Amino acid sequence: MARLSKGLSWQQLADAIGRPVVWTTAALLGQHPIPPEHGAVLVEMLGLDPDVVPVLAAVPMRGGLPTAVPTDPTIYRFYEALQVYGPALKELIHEQFGDGIMSAINFSVDIAKKPHPAGDRVVVTFDGKFLPYDWTAAQG
Amino acid sequence: MARLSKGLSWQQLADAIGRPVVWTTAALLGQHPIPPEHGAVLVEMLGLDPDVVPVLAAVPMRGGLPTAVPTDPTIYRFYEALQVYGPALKELIHEQFGDGIMSAINFSVDIAKKPHPAGDRVVVTFDGKFLPYDWTAAQG
Amino acid sequence: MARLSKGLSWQQLADAIGRPVVWTTAALLGQHPIPPEHGAVLVEMLGLDPDVVPVLAAVPMRGGLPTAVPTDPTIYRFYEALQVYGPALKELIHEQFGDGIMSAINFSVDIAKKPHPAGDRVVVTFDGKFLPYDWTAAQG
Amino acid sequence: MARLSKGLSWQQLADAIGRPVVWTTAALLGQHPIPPEHGAVLVEMLGLDPDVVPVLAAVPMRGGLPTAVPTDPTIYRFYEALQVYGPALKELIHEQFGDGIMSAINFSVDIAKKPHPAGDRVVVTFDGKFLPYDWTAAQG
Amino acid sequence: MARLSKGLSWQQLADAIGRPVVWTTAALLGQHPIPPEHGAVLVEMLGLDPDVVPVLAAVPMRGGLPTAVPTDPTIYRFYEALQVYGPALKELIHEQFGDGIMSAINFSVDIAKKPHPAGDRVVVTFDGKFLPYDWTAAQG
Amino acid sequence: MARLSKGLSWQQLADAIGRPVVWTTAALLGQHPIPPEHGAVLVEMLGLDPDVVPVLAAVPMRGGLPTAVPTDPTIYRFYEALQVYGPALKELIHEQFGDGIMSAINFSVDIAKKPHPAGDRVVVTFDGKFLPYDWTAAQG
Amino acid sequence: MARLSKGLSWQQLADAIGRPVVWTTAALLGQHPIPPEHGAVLVEMLGLDPDVVPVLAAVPMRGGLPTAVPTDPTIYRFYEALQVYGPALKELIHEQFGDGIMSAINFSVDIAKKPHPAGDRVVVTFDGKFLPYDWTAAQG
Amino acid sequence: MARLSKGLSWQQLADAIGRPVVWTTAALLGQHPIPPEHGAVLVEMLGLDPDVVPVLAAVPMRGGLPTAVPTDPTIYRFYEALQVYGPALKELIHEQFGDGIMSAINFSVDIAKKPHPAGDRVVVTFDGKFLPYDWTAAQG
Amino acid sequence: MARLSKGLSWQQLADAIGRPVVWTTAALLGQHPIPPEHGAVLVEMLGLDPDVVPVLAAVPMRGGLPTAVPTDPTIYRFYEALQVYGPALKELIHEQFGDGIMSAINFSVDIAKKPHPAGDRVVVTFDGKFLPYDWTAAQG
Amino acid sequence: MARLSKGLSWQQLADAIGRPVVWTTAALLGQHPIPPEHGAVLVEMLGLDPDVVPVLAAVPMRGGLPTAVPTDPTIYRFYEALQVYGPALKELIHEQFGDGIMSAINFSVDIAKKPHPAGDRVVVTFDGKFLPYDWTAAQG
Repeated sequence: MARLSKGLSWQQLADAIGRPVVWTTAALLGQHPIPPEHGAVLVEMLGLDPDVVPVLAAVPMRGGLPTAVPTDPTIYRFYEALQVYGPALKELIHEQFGDGIMSAINFSVDIAKKPHPAGDRVVVTFDGKFLPYDWTAAQG
Repeated sequence: MARLSKGLSWQQLADAIGRPVVWTTAALLGQHPIPPEHGAVLVEMLGLDPDVVPVLAAVPMRGGLPTAVPTDPTIYRFYEALQVYGPALKELIHEQFGDGIMSAINFSVDIAKKPHPAGDRVVVTFDGKFLPYDWTAAQG
Repeated sequence: MARLSKGLSWQQLADAIGRPVVWTTAALLGQHPIPPEHGAVLVEMLGLDPDVVPVLAAVPMRGGLPTAVPTDPTIYRFYEALQVYGPALKELIHEQFGDGIMSAINFSVDIAKKPHPAGDRVVVTFDGKFLPYDWTAAQG
Repeated sequence: MARLSKGLSWQQLADAIGRPVVWTTAALLGQHPIPPEHGAVLVEMLGLDPDVVPVLAAVPMRGGLPTAVPTDPTIYRFYEALQVYGPALKELIHEQFGDGIMSAINFSVDIAKKPHPAGDRVVVTFDGKFLPYDWTAAQG
Repeated sequence: MARLSKGLSWQQLADAIGRPVVWTTAALLGQHPIPPEHGAVLVEMLGLDPDVVPVLAAVPMRGGLPTAVPTDPTIYRFYEALQVYGPALKELIHEQFGDGIMSAINFSVDIAKKPHPAGDRVVVTFDGKFLPYDWTAAQG
Repeated sequence: MARLSKGLSWQQLADAIGRPVVWTTAALLGQHPIPPEHGAVLVEMLGLDPDVVPVLAAVPMRGGLPTAVPTDPTIYRFYEALQVYGPALKELIHEQFGDGIMSAINFSVDIAKKPHPAGDRVVVTFDGKFLPYDWTAAQG
Repeated sequence: MARLSKGLSWQQLADAIGRPVVWTTAALLGQHPIPPEHGAVLVEMLGLDPDVVPVLAAVPMRGGLPTAVPTDPTIYRFYEALQVYGPALKELIHEQFGDGIMSAINFSVDIAKKPHPAGDRVVVTFDGKFLPYDWTAAQG
Repeated sequence: MARLSKGLSWQQLADAIGRPVVWTTAALLGQHPIPPEHGAVLVEMLGLDPDVVPVLAAVPMRGGLPTAVPTDPTIYRFYEALQVYGPALKELIHEQFGDGIMSAINFSVDIAKKPHPAGDRVVVTFDGKFLPYDWTAAQG
Repeated sequence: MARLSKGLSWQQLADAIGRPVVWTTAALLGQHPIPPEHGAVLVEMLGLDPDVVPVLAAVPMRGGLPTAVPTDPTIYRFYEALQVYGPALKELIHEQFGDGIMSAINFSVDIAKKPHPAGDRVVVTFDGKFLPYDWTAAQG
Repeated sequence: MARLSKGLSWQQLADAIGRPVVWTTAALLGQHPIPPEHGAVLVEMLGLDPDVVPVLAAVPMRGGLPTAVPTDPTIYRFYEALQVYGPALKELIHEQFGDGIMSAINFSVDIAKKPHPAGDRVVVTFDGKFLPYDWTAAQG
């Protein structure tokens, strides 16, 4: 990949366009459209053909896992957490907020490296707007 | 379920045994063994048969989703986040920590209700020890 | 089912609690919690045990299809419409609203019988709030 | 795709051939044959090879989802609606029309942007002829 | 099953209610609602509880195969015919009728035992109304 | 496909080699070997390379559906008929013929357009030799 | 199972009814109907209720593997042989017999224990009538 | 394939290297490594590039079925035999040999065309060493 | 389970019958037949009905995972090791032993707790006889 | 593959970079990043383009099995061992170590050829650090 041969980190790419690094990485992995002004910067940094700018700006068909259950160990651990804690998170969202969901659209993800005496920790924060089930219809 | 008819919240059950609420909920949903001293408290609060205390204390066969891809909307949003952000989280764990994973065993999950002018937000934090790939063997 | 032996229609049940008929039917099929005051009415009409009122009031584990691809012809036609028109709806939501989704939470469904010279038509309206992708985080 | 580099919207393409926009988008995504007179117009607008006109006019092998359960969030919401409301829609079609289905062949889909004080709404209408189960055989 | 211990054939049951034998068999296997007047006859012949008459009269959740690909050899041969001839039937329906489908709702199935010098043959006729793709909407 | 650009119908191809149209279509879709003398005629009509004649004459790896459950609506209706009527056909084959199957090898399929006052009908006939379960072994 | 507590071998059961042992075992495992005269003998030997005789005599819904890919090692080896040798057997059936199949209906299976200096061998013989693809239709 | 255009049968290829025909066919279909001395002969007969000899000699990733349940009718019949007779073969291997398996590694397959008054039969013999379950560990 | 309420460890049960602990645990979990003399001991220790002794002694239908891909984290790690190291183990078995397999029948498994300065280690040893691919047939 | 045509064994490649042979094989099969200094050596030995060195050094998307259940017999035996012994290993890890897992990250695999009077044995050792379930969170 162009990024590896240029020796660019995801953080450098994110900084260059002033966007959060999780968003930028997800976008370059085909999960978010990249506005043309940002696309142009990234395309130049990566030495790609400028013609891909509008392609990067189109809303993609999302879904980045090659199999329904991920096989990569680093990604699998998140799936495993869902197997073990998913139903508990559902119960507590309902207990604390009522019937509804954590939006995955009005949503951000943050990753941080935090210290602990027993070793550094990966801290991933899922932050989504609570959306209550709401039986509403358009007007007129 | 006994909890509903007793009108007990997950938070009350967690408080009674002095354990985090996500852990307590997951444990009562069959994902963690419950130490007998805690099990005895919960069994009494829920009006269950004391014989289940050793069953609650046994390590369970884990896995709380009835289908590989969850159908419940509240749980599905976490799966969707994995589809959209999973590969990006993998890249950034590698960029920030090196080759390895976020442990789902030396791990905790926290859920909080946080304010925002546009509406309350569900903030879920996955906090796992970074485990580097390490080709080690036992001694002797 | 109690409803059949009592000869009650879904519409009668919905009218008795003053809620939309699609919502009421979905709720009684286990897809929505039923507030206790409504649950009490329905339980009496159906001749069920009053103890089920708090169970009906709990948020359910949602997902009403027994297989990922439905086998029932009446339900399958909706899945087929998704196979044929799903990608087009995605493109047009993006073209008319921008990047985002039609919410299935802030959402209502209506079904109507409408006339046409060639025969009555089933008109089902999915009406969900547009949610733009919005990278927001909680405060503090 | 040619459409993006030409800067053409799906609506402009639909207007050029005088066909509904959902139909036109679905057809260009390979779900409906495009009559040669319309195909010729679209091929010219998109700068494609005129040889594709008869290919666009052939009845396609339909089915536009790459996986049985869609991973794209915008499309998934329709699948989720089916999981939550599908059995209810089945019950109400039977209650209001009798035993049968909503045709997905004698069928149209409309999408509209409708206002609401709490934000614009995506309103998608599935409109299909009711087909009663009818045990009929050909003559002679 | 009650039918076996009573020594009744499917044909006898169908004759008793004056309905085609394929329809009657499918209905008793849970694929079609049975009108109460017919249900009452069948329930008496089979020595069942009269309470099941309204249950038999309700529209069932259809789909009679326990796995997506049938394992029973007699049923599998029909699936195999679909694997081998399905795409050809599609092409020829389009060539002879235009774009559309053979309805499986306005539909009948007949089975007959026909002679041939090399041995009796099973002749199964699928007879469905041709439904052309027709982009129609309800009035008003 | 060459057939479309030449404007040839499946019926014309079948007539040219004097074979039934369902067989010819299935064969050209890769489900039956085509004898060299017929292959040569078809290859010339379609303007293909004569080298493909022996390839068309080889017994193919059969199975023409890209997914276990077909997504194309025209093909799906046959699968749906199997879901609804498959177990009934099994019962009636056993009732009328005894234990065994309808062969899908000693087998032919016919499709016809038949009139009906309510609209033309697609009549598909599956005609297979009855094969009784027969526990036989070779001699010597 | 009754057989185990009675200490009866499959061979003894087969001998008692004068049928091949593979057939008898498969039949008692629910894969073949058992004629009433044999069923009566087996039911008495096994100490079962005579009422099951007509149930054993009905044609069963066949298919004895609980999963599509068998997990039991003894059964899996046959599936593995199919993975490794299945395509070769297909090629050789075509080379030696022409286009067609080995019938699994006009078919017998035999199992024998045969000696070899390196240890006894399990020899399983599948013996099915060759059925050529034959495009035949019923008369009249 | 080169074999078809050269008009070579699998038997001729097997004879040329003096190996059993099922083994040779499976090997050329990618299921067994072919020793270089045999590979050189086959490569010359088929007119292939001599560079493929070491590739043919490498142990392949085995598994020749494109789907878990085969769709080709000729191969499917073996799978069907496994569905119907697999559990019976398991029982009889245990009854005649004890707990263990028929090896699919110390194993050979033979196919023969045998006569029968009612038509030729395909006789396929699976011949594998019996391996008893044996809880053994290496020395030292 | 009886074992938990009796407070018996797997090791105690294994010691009582003088068999390896992995074997004993697997056997009690339904994966191996238990000889009657051992079964009698275990049944008495666990306070079970003596009638289950012959059931425990029958060869079971093996396969202990409820889903093809295990969801329990402790078991999943072995599956993950197979995803990451399976193809490498295959290559090295072939390089060191030639074409063949590690038997899972002439096989034992051992688990040990071994020290390491950074923490105790789980050491699991799979020990199976090498079985070379060997094309052998029974005599006569 | 370059390795085969160069006649290099996996052991020779591992020796050249001074790394364990299972690790080296897995890494070259795309399951571990290869440090540039080792990558440069391997690339030269295999005669590959030096540009692949940074690609080999990137953390890969792991998962080396083409299907969830492996079809290759050599790899399948490990999966079978998991089916038969997986739940037992889980029980014993819990009995000997407490609730937790064998890490597959702080982990090594060794393969050895060990003698036994009845034939050489494949001994594969999985050696992973025990990780107890530990509900820990980062500081601050």
